[in-house]
Amino acid sequence: MDEPPKGRRSVRADGARTRAAILHAAARLASVDGLEGLTIGRLAADLTMSKSGLYAHFGSKVELQLATIEEAAGVFAAEVVGPALAAQPGRGQLLALCDAYLDYLRARTFPGGCFFAAAALEMGSRPGPVRDRIAAFQHELMGITSGFVHAAHQHGDLLDDSPVALAFEINGQFLAANAGFNLTDDPGVLDLAAMILHRRLDAPTAGSITGSPT
Amino acid sequence: MDEPPKGRRSVRADGARTRAAILHAAARLASVDGLEGLTIGRLAADLTMSKSGLYAHFGSKVELQLATIEEAAGVFAAEVVGPALAAQPGRGQLLALCDAYLDYLRARTFPGGCFFAAAALEMGSRPGPVRDRIAAFQHELMGITSGFVHAAHQHGDLLDDSPVALAFEINGQFLAANAGFNLTDDPGVLDLAAMILHRRLDAPTAGSITGSPT
Repeated sequence: MDEPPKGRRSVRADGARTRAAILHAAARLASVDGLEGLTIGRLAADLTMSKSGLYAHFGSKVELQLATIEEAAGVFAAEVVGPALAAQPGRGQLLALCDAYLDYLRARTFPGGCFFAAAALEMGSRPGPVRDRIAAFQHELMGITSGFVHAAHQHGDLLDDSPVALAFEINGQFLAANAGFNLTDDPGVLDLAAMILHRRLDAPTAGSITGSPT
Repeated sequence: MDEPPKGRRSVRADGARTRAAILHAAARLASVDGLEGLTIGRLAADLTMSKSGLYAHFGSKVELQLATIEEAAGVFAAEVVGPALAAQPGRGQLLALCDAYLDYLRARTFPGGCFFAAAALEMGSRPGPVRDRIAAFQHELMGITSGFVHAAHQHGDLLDDSPVALAFEINGQFLAANAGFNLTDDPGVLDLAAMILHRRLDAPTAGSITGSPT
């Protein structure tokens, strides 16, 4: 293989750093203004770059949107899915996922709240490759969550739940936590969601709890 | 009291009809493009009206946004809260609220899905009177839902739930139904949400169900 000349290599490294900086800013901006609000002009103004400089990295708005989604998906994987994957299979793994998601909101990882919750609503009524990518992310997250439920079943926890139904329920509490925290800035919303999720997952099944009413 | 002259009265009636038509279109448009995407220019183009004609009804974008929220709140009250208020207090009233909400999604009352779910995310990071109005709507809806839970307690249903926590849980399933249906167009999402909500509310308490595992 030919090695590229030194100068060219460092231009490439600079280019990669610039691209990473653009995408970091783009994901934050899109969480507030939406993926449709993410124009090359707006981002160029935010980064004090020229529009032509940005066009060199992303040829179109759709390319910029798709790259921004990949950036946000990487953040989500590191902050939310990673801690759960590191946990032992079982109920504790689902609780690790829930706690990591609520921490990701609490830390305001994206200033507009959960990037993907916002994108799912924004893109729902806009068919095209950006919606398809968001739908694929959502499908994947539901698959991961229901896989954790399935593993918990095999581990003897959570006896009779449908993995798909429980993944849906958990996702609903994530969305309520995100919407409520976004609208009120009250961390009590996250504490309430944590209480609900822990109570739900501490119960071995939805329909077979043996404790007495309190 | 003086009666207004005939001509003037019918101008007023025409004005009210026009205003109603504008707000109907505005609520539908905002459910897709967001309340920030709702500009007088865009709405005028959609309605094939002049911008100056629209300015005669709404002096500013914020006035148009606030009037659009009132329009959507009226639709929500009629379609979702109304059927629940008409039901007998008890668990059935909560189920009526859930079913009415899912019907409101299924009917695509707003083409972009639930107007208020979208607005809560969009406005979360935009302080001002529009966010305040959306937060007040959300607070009111949570108050109505937890009032229904409280009434169900008094009726002897749902023994040990905190009304606020159960209202939050129900809202989460509403948000998951809206996001999932919006993204997939699959009515199975609404059926799954209905199953989860009915199962949750059929259980007299979160921690005291006596049925055996299946």
